[in-house]
Amino acid sequence: MLYFEDFHPGQEIDLGHCSVSESEIVDFARQFDPQPFHVDHEAARASHFGGLVASGWHTCSLLMRQIVENLLLRSASHGSPGVDEIRWLLPVRPGDVLSTKMKVIEITPSKSRPDRGVIRCEYVAFNQAGACVVTMKTLGMFGRRPQDAA
Amino acid sequence: MLYFEDFHPGQEIDLGHCSVSESEIVDFARQFDPQPFHVDHEAARASHFGGLVASGWHTCSLLMRQIVENLLLRSASHGSPGVDEIRWLLPVRPGDVLSTKMKVIEITPSKSRPDRGVIRCEYVAFNQAGACVVTMKTLGMFGRRPQDAA
Repeated sequence: MLYFEDFHPGQEIDLGHCSVSESEIVDFARQFDPQPFHVDHEAARASHFGGLVASGWHTCSLLMRQIVENLLLRSASHGSPGVDEIRWLLPVRPGDVLSTKMKVIEITPSKSRPDRGVIRCEYVAFNQAGACVVTMKTLGMFGRRPQDAA
Repeated sequence: MLYFEDFHPGQEIDLGHCSVSESEIVDFARQFDPQPFHVDHEAARASHFGGLVASGWHTCSLLMRQIVENLLLRSASHGSPGVDEIRWLLPVRPGDVLSTKMKVIEITPSKSRPDRGVIRCEYVAFNQAGACVVTMKTLGMFGRRPQDAA
């Protein structure tokens, strides 16, 4: 289990990789982001993307799965108050493989709740060509190791 | 069609409402955010949430559907470079009905591309009790009305 004390600024954690298929891109977008370049081949080809691309919210959700499976489920995570910044830098296309890393920016023990602290970090995902497709700065609450709590 | 010129700071646009069911919450979370309080009744009841709650990414995706259906599909939207802030203020629970509004913060004509501009805005969603559950500040690129473009 990873606790608040196990993180430090500058630390990098590899969160593995995942791929995304055309049918997954279209299914997500039909439910949540039915813009033509996410759901319609012809419209996507005619758009400035030149083909189907994943919804930015789909890309974030794919990263979240990597974060949960490779970090949160083996940590004392207490959820998140929010996100400080997302930048969708390059389109994510069918067949892309995304590799995700967490970089710790800042750790702040909670003043009001001595059993936890807030970790600011940046998640970055690269495609199979090594290009960064998205950056995401988030806040996460993590419990302190029980014997360390005041 | 709504163009860049049709937005001004302070403007508010009603984006309607949507509801979310327990099976939708669990389906989304199984795919993208399989933390116990999103997918497992018993674990959710034992957590500080006291019951199943939607993934924050699911909440954002539900808002996105409202934004697309009620704004982007009838506007000259050219996509978004990213998000400046998300705050998940209250849990979203099965059966909740979310009403979403857009508030325009700032409009900036593009210097490099005279046919478009960037609109900074805040989306806010309220549940059926009138409590704000999420705020989301985003950047959106919108085309100018053709005859207005330089």
